[in-house]
Amino acid sequence: MPSLLIHEVGFRDGLQMEKQVVPTERKIAWIEAAFRSGVDLVQVGSFVHPDKVPQMADTDRLFTYFSEPGKTPAGVTLSGLVLNEKGLERGLGCGVGMFCMGVSASETHSRKNTGMAIAEANTRIVAMAKRALGEGKKVQLSVQSAFGCGYEGRVPKQRVVDIVKTFLDAGLRSLSLADTAGHATPDDVAELFARVRELEPTADWTCHFHNTYGLALANGYAARLAGVTSFESSIAGLGGCPFTKVAGGNTCTEDLVHALQRAGLRADLKLDVLLEIANDVAAFFQRDLPGCIYRTGPIPEPVAG
Amino acid sequence: MPSLLIHEVGFRDGLQMEKQVVPTERKIAWIEAAFRSGVDLVQVGSFVHPDKVPQMADTDRLFTYFSEPGKTPAGVTLSGLVLNEKGLERGLGCGVGMFCMGVSASETHSRKNTGMAIAEANTRIVAMAKRALGEGKKVQLSVQSAFGCGYEGRVPKQRVVDIVKTFLDAGLRSLSLADTAGHATPDDVAELFARVRELEPTADWTCHFHNTYGLALANGYAARLAGVTSFESSIAGLGGCPFTKVAGGNTCTEDLVHALQRAGLRADLKLDVLLEIANDVAAFFQRDLPGCIYRTGPIPEPVAG
Repeated sequence: MPSLLIHEVGFRDGLQMEKQVVPTERKIAWIEAAFRSGVDLVQVGSFVHPDKVPQMADTDRLFTYFSEPGKTPAGVTLSGLVLNEKGLERGLGCGVGMFCMGVSASETHSRKNTGMAIAEANTRIVAMAKRALGEGKKVQLSVQSAFGCGYEGRVPKQRVVDIVKTFLDAGLRSLSLADTAGHATPDDVAELFARVRELEPTADWTCHFHNTYGLALANGYAARLAGVTSFESSIAGLGGCPFTKVAGGNTCTEDLVHALQRAGLRADLKLDVLLEIANDVAAFFQRDLPGCIYRTGPIPEPVAG
Repeated sequence: MPSLLIHEVGFRDGLQMEKQVVPTERKIAWIEAAFRSGVDLVQVGSFVHPDKVPQMADTDRLFTYFSEPGKTPAGVTLSGLVLNEKGLERGLGCGVGMFCMGVSASETHSRKNTGMAIAEANTRIVAMAKRALGEGKKVQLSVQSAFGCGYEGRVPKQRVVDIVKTFLDAGLRSLSLADTAGHATPDDVAELFARVRELEPTADWTCHFHNTYGLALANGYAARLAGVTSFESSIAGLGGCPFTKVAGGNTCTEDLVHALQRAGLRADLKLDVLLEIANDVAAFFQRDLPGCIYRTGPIPEPVAG
């Protein structure tokens, strides 16, 4: 298994932000291209009510499609976001490989996003996570708004640590800190991941950053130094949470992979395929997307000296 | 003295890239605003031939103006870039506080930029540096294209270390590594600064990054972790070297300061003043500039929880 995993979340966290609904056939083509690029996990969609997020209305169909024999490469995990029990049941019925679920560290964000206070949301999410584990599924639990909130401002780090403790106490070991609003700085990232990793050094840690204030790649570097091994990112830097006030795109997948490959990491990933997807996504939405490398091209080779 | 210094280089490295020449009065207004922001060093211009870089034709006039009593705050150093002996003599005659000069680690970049091979350029620059020191001036010596070159690709780290050795052997202690082409990754930055700092741990280190591939702030974070204490940056992310093939803007001053202040550093700097300058510069050039925070605004306060 590679030491650093790339989890493409643009087809969920990216597309849910776009007014224009992407046809299912186009999503299938993009996801299949993501398979060819070699990324390790692909988030196919979100089990929300189609009236609330019409961009995700075909999530069940997509999972059913990719669950057919031969449609998904052996090494790839298909993930789906679930917000509640109903979504979990839908996901259990259509072939989700890994359930992603989370609790916000901001009371305001939690109430806006789920209608529940943090404590209530936490109890329900932990119960859902245990049920999915019991069904033999992978589960990744995240703390959303872990580094700040568009409504509340700074989020006390201790609150995040306390939520993580409840996850660990429930036996959950695949954990994520998500910077929903893009407020994190590398210093915050280094400190908070160090604190949660102290609780349970053998847990698997994922990071999820938004580039609202230009720091997504810097935060990813700090996370890597802090021992994080899985990186959520969006093709072309698509994305943002519709329930935060200032929504910036996610860490851009191909920019992240480009930087990692310059550092000698994940040479197996096909950057050219990622750039093709980014160009196709930008062409589909007919605008410049936040990603950098799909516009500049990679740093020119060959190696000199 | 603050632990981290900000060196505003946008009025040189930024404006030299722009087709539109900025009137001297406007430059004076921007530089005076930079003084009010509290940045530590301001690069006023470059002593190049006005036919080659007309944007810098008023450099001597600007230094003469700011050398008048009361025109420059006591704590601020005015720096000027010099490429050759003639420029040095001009600078010695008009009140430069710190001379910035450099040698490229790329043969091709060195020849295109100076007409000289690295070795010859190095000998001349070290002699110029000694002369300026002898005149009681501050001198900062940089290795340009230290992390890669638009023409040559990767630059061997040992070559950079060797150039730095010649600077140290000549008694020069204020040193900079410049990523002229924007090829650096945080891993490169960590490794190269560690190697040069091993040579002489008490030297003062400056970094200069370009955001061509989206990594300027990540590289700045890596540099800070590596013990770098002075950061060159450009207001609104202006800039780029006209002698490299793909020229991206510099690290954006106000984005850098915003990130540092979120981390509790340099609270004395006036971010609002920097944002005013960035907006005024963008209005002058009538286009969006690369900087992020002058468009999004800073992360909203007040502190919650």
